[in-house]
Amino acid sequence: LALIWASKMLHQSGIKSADLIRALPVYDEMRVELMAGQYLDVYEQALATQSVERAMRVARYKSAKYTIERPLHFGAQLGSVTSKNIESLNAKYSDYGLPLGEAFQLRDDVLGVFGDPIETGKPAGDDLREGKRTVLMAATIERATDSAKLKIEKLFADPDLDEDGVAILRSIIVESGALNQLEDLIESLTIAALTATRSELIDPIAQTLLHELVAVAIARRV
Amino acid sequence: LALIWASKMLHQSGIKSADLIRALPVYDEMRVELMAGQYLDVYEQALATQSVERAMRVARYKSAKYTIERPLHFGAQLGSVTSKNIESLNAKYSDYGLPLGEAFQLRDDVLGVFGDPIETGKPAGDDLREGKRTVLMAATIERATDSAKLKIEKLFADPDLDEDGVAILRSIIVESGALNQLEDLIESLTIAALTATRSELIDPIAQTLLHELVAVAIARRV
Repeated sequence: LALIWASKMLHQSGIKSADLIRALPVYDEMRVELMAGQYLDVYEQALATQSVERAMRVARYKSAKYTIERPLHFGAQLGSVTSKNIESLNAKYSDYGLPLGEAFQLRDDVLGVFGDPIETGKPAGDDLREGKRTVLMAATIERATDSAKLKIEKLFADPDLDEDGVAILRSIIVESGALNQLEDLIESLTIAALTATRSELIDPIAQTLLHELVAVAIARRV
Repeated sequence: LALIWASKMLHQSGIKSADLIRALPVYDEMRVELMAGQYLDVYEQALATQSVERAMRVARYKSAKYTIERPLHFGAQLGSVTSKNIESLNAKYSDYGLPLGEAFQLRDDVLGVFGDPIETGKPAGDDLREGKRTVLMAATIERATDSAKLKIEKLFADPDLDEDGVAILRSIIVESGALNQLEDLIESLTIAALTATRSELIDPIAQTLLHELVAVAIARRV
């Protein structure tokens, strides 16, 4: 129902007909990708995947495209009545939006385990209780020692996990080096996104807004 | 995914932009009603409703609006560039489409219990095994004697119901008078639909097509 209401709101938004017609294919593509991303998410969760690469692919389809890349393409279509550069502009927005969207999802993974419940609005360790198959957990499992792996098997995805259990898993994540790996990855994705904005195709005011969006998306505090 | 693909196909169908924009609100409204109808269907099934009135409401939202009324409104919008009569025309199409859509669903209920498996493509008695809360079953339960009600309780919605069980339920439906009640209802709904087409708003060729649709929708054979 919410999916239908969303498209109804778009149709009634007051966007001029010609602009709307031009932007609808992007909107459709975004929704197809989102369906694929949500399916992938459920599927990989069911497989209990432990692969960083596969968890990154879920992040790309579920978050990066839907949250950042496609909305920029959508805006480019709305504003492109006369632009001959729409394809190059869309490529730039992908170069910016995909790494930033992935960084955003990785930051969400980190906050889901280490975030302050008062700021995130979610109980501490809820991602660990739920057994969420994040890139952070995949990296941890890839790097963990055998004894750490046994502890993960015992504690991860236990719905009754208590504070002590959360603390043990957190220290395994830190000691494995996975948290550092993720922070490095967030940093390099952020640099890639920022670099992509340096283009004559994107005007200076838009560049400033895109930089502000980077700061918000990867903030350590919510 | 199919829901999104359907709207993508509509957007790419080649319908002219101005026509498409005019028809989108009908498409949205139809999809909102369908979501409501599907929800009602699951909800009433979970409540194991025994009310003819409530089963009719499900038929209206799940089938009548989606299958007949709204597609006619959609077509009216597509063809109505200059028409001042669009509201009167839509009212006519509702007067035709809602009773016909309900008759169509009632015919489906009857075929689900009494239909020839070779023609319906569904095993005989499957609606009985599934415990489908149709208008036919609601009417039967309303009219059944106490001893027949006990048999219904025992046999209806039994996934392992055999041929003999199906035969017993069929004869209860017939003897209660529910089958006749449904055939009478289908007939009066059909007459209402046919009567609505006698209007100067609808041209003779369209009237003929609408009459053919009546014949197909309520046919005793599939």
